[in-house]
Amino acid sequence: MSLIVQKYGGTSMGSPERIREVAKRVARFHGEGHQLVVVVSAMSGETNRLLGLAKALNAEPDPRELDVIASTGEQVSIGLLAIALQSLGLKAKSYTGAQVRILTDDAYSKARILAIDDANIRKDLAEGCIVVVAGFQGVDEQGNITTLGRGGSDTTGVALAAALKADECQIYTDVDGVYTTDPRVEPDARRLKTVTFEEMLEMASLGSKVLQIRSVEFAGKYKVKLRVLSSFTPVDSTDEGTLITFEEDENMEQAIISGIAFNRDEAKITITGVPDKPGIAFSILGPVADANIDVDVIIQNASVEGLTDFSFTVHRNEFKRTMEVLETKVKPVIGAKAIVGDDKIAKVSLVGIGMRTHAGIASKMFGALAQERINIQMISTSEIKTSVVIDEKYMELAVRVLHRAFELDKEPVQETLKP
Amino acid sequence: MSLIVQKYGGTSMGSPERIREVAKRVARFHGEGHQLVVVVSAMSGETNRLLGLAKALNAEPDPRELDVIASTGEQVSIGLLAIALQSLGLKAKSYTGAQVRILTDDAYSKARILAIDDANIRKDLAEGCIVVVAGFQGVDEQGNITTLGRGGSDTTGVALAAALKADECQIYTDVDGVYTTDPRVEPDARRLKTVTFEEMLEMASLGSKVLQIRSVEFAGKYKVKLRVLSSFTPVDSTDEGTLITFEEDENMEQAIISGIAFNRDEAKITITGVPDKPGIAFSILGPVADANIDVDVIIQNASVEGLTDFSFTVHRNEFKRTMEVLETKVKPVIGAKAIVGDDKIAKVSLVGIGMRTHAGIASKMFGALAQERINIQMISTSEIKTSVVIDEKYMELAVRVLHRAFELDKEPVQETLKP
Repeated sequence: MSLIVQKYGGTSMGSPERIREVAKRVARFHGEGHQLVVVVSAMSGETNRLLGLAKALNAEPDPRELDVIASTGEQVSIGLLAIALQSLGLKAKSYTGAQVRILTDDAYSKARILAIDDANIRKDLAEGCIVVVAGFQGVDEQGNITTLGRGGSDTTGVALAAALKADECQIYTDVDGVYTTDPRVEPDARRLKTVTFEEMLEMASLGSKVLQIRSVEFAGKYKVKLRVLSSFTPVDSTDEGTLITFEEDENMEQAIISGIAFNRDEAKITITGVPDKPGIAFSILGPVADANIDVDVIIQNASVEGLTDFSFTVHRNEFKRTMEVLETKVKPVIGAKAIVGDDKIAKVSLVGIGMRTHAGIASKMFGALAQERINIQMISTSEIKTSVVIDEKYMELAVRVLHRAFELDKEPVQETLKP
Repeated sequence: MSLIVQKYGGTSMGSPERIREVAKRVARFHGEGHQLVVVVSAMSGETNRLLGLAKALNAEPDPRELDVIASTGEQVSIGLLAIALQSLGLKAKSYTGAQVRILTDDAYSKARILAIDDANIRKDLAEGCIVVVAGFQGVDEQGNITTLGRGGSDTTGVALAAALKADECQIYTDVDGVYTTDPRVEPDARRLKTVTFEEMLEMASLGSKVLQIRSVEFAGKYKVKLRVLSSFTPVDSTDEGTLITFEEDENMEQAIISGIAFNRDEAKITITGVPDKPGIAFSILGPVADANIDVDVIIQNASVEGLTDFSFTVHRNEFKRTMEVLETKVKPVIGAKAIVGDDKIAKVSLVGIGMRTHAGIASKMFGALAQERINIQMISTSEIKTSVVIDEKYMELAVRVLHRAFELDKEPVQETLKP
């Protein structure tokens, strides 16, 4: 008998009919002898409806009151799922975040979980009850209702799994797992049986939006076995989705590259003719950080005659504001030659835990792109990721070229790198 | 400076526009220097929508889970009103029933308030904050969410007013006060400036659905000054609605009759030829009570040759079931002659605290009805009420005849009974 935490998102809970399907799936696992804690999101569309009501009254509503309103979406869902489970003859009981007592800090709309009281849930489970918990919400020390921010239901699931030392946390969503890349870009994209937390973090932050990044961090920190599955398979499906592992030796596929992430949310800015002296990077990025603009890739070229070029990327929405900051607060101070911006770029990244121990990945990547005459504008590397910034119009082509070059369409049987 | 509890119902809270109007009205009283606690219902239609979702999953959903779901309607309202008040530059803070701590018993969907913790509210009020509380809901000793049943928001308002020793509890609704009778039946119906609790109780239970009967009982018990007002008057209206008083000498109008209540929800059953011996009433009504059927008017005629006729009324929905109980469980036992039923009846009642001290009311009533040839089928009297059961088709006529006979269209200047 295992203790399983399952999480169902808004699409899975989208209607009474869908909720009945969720109940049947939960019942199946319960029938197999497992203890079940089920975390649910608000019915799809509900959170937006509620926020719309609030914004009709004030464009920037008080975050405390917004959380009071938004948290009702999940509260309705827990009641409905408990009723659906009871209709199948099962014992079920719902809990709001406050009732579990999922204690958070008081950062309304983006609260962080501090502690979970598992006493009531354990008692219910011991009595054969299925426990249904509202995702996305908690309560602060003063009893104020808080929410964890969008996608916070995943975090609730993982945090509960950690607190209860669950055998597995299953995240049911509208995709059936993690793919080597977006199947809409590369039809040969293959679903991964396993992926490591580190890889998942790199994939998530780069745009493969299967799981919220915070929930993955949480799972990694507390060593929660996390599995992504589809709630749209038949209720008796034995499909195992993608397992996210925290131990490398569990990564049975032994692939060097797990996937290719990409996004076109960024813009590139280059400052040319910058005097190459200590403190120059801070002189440039300090004012940008002061303006609350996040910087992603940062590149500084080697100096030629005491002058260097300095490039970095920001979110495309922040492009204009960044250019203004640089023109008004940076250029006059450091005496650069020119500031050049380009918001028609894309970032394509190879992600793979195997990179750590394998040489030649980057050169193989650059070679494959060169063969298709795709010019690389920036390069950035980390232990398990190699990213290139290219012209936006080549993004899909680059993804497909790299997918083929690293044979990601094929199940890896053994280590396959042929340098 | 007074402490005022205001309650706004679902129609008053029906849309962001309406909520903005409520906020302005609250702000007006706050601006006049009063402390304000505002109790709100769910937006109109919302509770039915939520119950509909639950019933789509189970025709008889678990009451605990139903309360979890239904209570979200008011939770959304408190957040929205707090935001609307803040938009007017006021300090406002919302509380769910659990957050106030409105402690109730655990009778889900019809819970009773046991205690109210007023510490947080008093602290907020002292800081100049307007406190917005969710009506209709509380929490039991174990932290389960409970609801007080339909119309429970009125009870929340009165209970808070009692706990806080408020100067007045104002119930804003879609009518502007209590009338001598339903203006749809008698266009000359007049709004009462004051009405006593006892009269209000009789009016409410007889169908003048302005206030929930439980809230009136509560107000009477704790001597809360209760006022019914319309939320559809202009925000700066000085209209004072109807004050419900608990001291007779506050009833300045000194009317003998305050109003005429009526309903056509009942059915009459007569058992003829019943042996007139001790215990016969129990033999008849015992099995009816065992079947959980409420009985209203009960009449037993004087005995003729050891046989009597026994009549009573039940809710019209229970008519068939009552007849079955009588035929199968009562008739064979007591040996009655016949059981005759009639569900085409109406009950019309004169209500007035002045009846206590004035003779001749009943005979004047019967005389007025006789003049219009309206046959009286049953008569029932209490200290402040005289009811007659008549043929349903004469109901409107009877109401108008009595309204005229007792001159209810005229403001009472002094005691007006001319016997």
